[in-house]
Amino acid sequence: MRNALPALLLVLPLGGTLAAVPSPAEIVDHAPDSAWRTVAPDQLLLMKTNDGRRIVIELAPQFAPVHVANVVRLAQGRAWDGGAIMRVQDNYVVQWSVRDEKASLPMHFVAHPPAEYDRPLEGLTYRPLGFADPYATKVGFADGWPVGGDGTSVWPAQCYGTIGVARDMPPDTGNGQELYVVNGEAPRQLDRNLAVVGRVLVGMELLGALPRGTGPLGFYTDVRQNVGIQSVVLASDLPVSERPKVQTMRVESATFAAYLAARAARSDPFFVHPAHGVALCNVPVPAREVL
Amino acid sequence: MRNALPALLLVLPLGGTLAAVPSPAEIVDHAPDSAWRTVAPDQLLLMKTNDGRRIVIELAPQFAPVHVANVVRLAQGRAWDGGAIMRVQDNYVVQWSVRDEKASLPMHFVAHPPAEYDRPLEGLTYRPLGFADPYATKVGFADGWPVGGDGTSVWPAQCYGTIGVARDMPPDTGNGQELYVVNGEAPRQLDRNLAVVGRVLVGMELLGALPRGTGPLGFYTDVRQNVGIQSVVLASDLPVSERPKVQTMRVESATFAAYLAARAARSDPFFVHPAHGVALCNVPVPAREVL
Repeated sequence: MRNALPALLLVLPLGGTLAAVPSPAEIVDHAPDSAWRTVAPDQLLLMKTNDGRRIVIELAPQFAPVHVANVVRLAQGRAWDGGAIMRVQDNYVVQWSVRDEKASLPMHFVAHPPAEYDRPLEGLTYRPLGFADPYATKVGFADGWPVGGDGTSVWPAQCYGTIGVARDMPPDTGNGQELYVVNGEAPRQLDRNLAVVGRVLVGMELLGALPRGTGPLGFYTDVRQNVGIQSVVLASDLPVSERPKVQTMRVESATFAAYLAARAARSDPFFVHPAHGVALCNVPVPAREVL
Repeated sequence: MRNALPALLLVLPLGGTLAAVPSPAEIVDHAPDSAWRTVAPDQLLLMKTNDGRRIVIELAPQFAPVHVANVVRLAQGRAWDGGAIMRVQDNYVVQWSVRDEKASLPMHFVAHPPAEYDRPLEGLTYRPLGFADPYATKVGFADGWPVGGDGTSVWPAQCYGTIGVARDMPPDTGNGQELYVVNGEAPRQLDRNLAVVGRVLVGMELLGALPRGTGPLGFYTDVRQNVGIQSVVLASDLPVSERPKVQTMRVESATFAAYLAARAARSDPFFVHPAHGVALCNVPVPAREVL
């Protein structure tokens, strides 16, 4: 989710000491180790496609525990291996499915999960964004995730890279067999209308570049256009040496505070009119893979 | 820029009569002809890449007249033919260049245009969005374009599909030879910091799907990755039969008002929690090509 480097033509120096007015990218590059937390391997999915795309996903059990438990059971049952990405709608979502939606379901799978679209704020750490938002009276970061809220409840914001459970019309029909990821301008009209189960931490640029489908809603019109899924595995089920190690920035850290302030008021030399404000989804929580 | 159809799995009926609570897409599909305006051919660019992508761009002389005049002169001198897309940064911008930046410049070309980053609101029709925005005290649509403003001045918002003039550090160094288009979450920190010269009306999904560059700032690391530009031509310089005919929805129409209201409070059957608010860049002005 590291992106949006500051200049258009200029390559700013990214190593060495910080500039007098560092850019957000420079702040992230100089973050101390203490500003990062490592995602637990039982909350990481590793997804590989037949054409070589490698995606690492962080799960969000704190927001949709029943749906996430379903997703974990599907991964442990290797239900996505042989599945496919079959929908890519421009500036909206990429969607994929298990190999066989009618296959026998894993043990303890919940066929009709509850509508886990929001949850109590209580029990989560919370950092406000500090700027107005058109979708919710309160926005900020709960347990490190961007959220809308009303002071009592919070719900994950559907930002670029957010993964949710596709569903049909009734709100309880998504069981996790079909997932989607946001690939454009945040469709936050979906906030609180779908269960969010995770976010892409590594490889979103590979999903973002998928050819758009030309059928209704961006579905591919020919199954030969589908992008085959080789495997989706929970990292904790892999040998230790093969587990991805991914970190996200602690939103309670001083580094994140500096990064947020810099994104809201770009004062590095390229900028002549800092906005003094920023949208929730334009402050992606920095993530990095430790190789 | 038509996108963001409502349901994830469901294909809603798009023909026939309107549903009891129509979705934004249904409202657009049922718009009367009077709700559309045809873009003048001298404000349309047709861009074709060597790999078959076809893009139609509307120019914005009302916001950056000197920069747009440069762009028109470059197109009329066929300066982009043989140029290339050489930068694709995920969730930020796609950037392209003329064939030879050191070539002799067209007659009347302004080598160092002024910083046309904002302009007076006076003289433009204006429709407010009606919802809060973190970047500007006022947001709405000026002359049919999404803008931020302060009540006196307005500036185009850098939404998905917005085209601007790339520049180096000093604010006067972009002359139009290199352009960029936004390909992700609106980087509105760029508002009022770069000259906006247009927007993609047709084919944005083809630019959105370009492979991301792996070099710094998303530049391709090998020129063989560049996407060659076959031609960029002003539509009015084409034979009448070859000119694209593209329409955008009149933002002053009743249809646009209904579309905006529906995007801000999704009440079609899929939605259980309408947001009662929407971000400026999540209300793309509908466009359609008349074939």
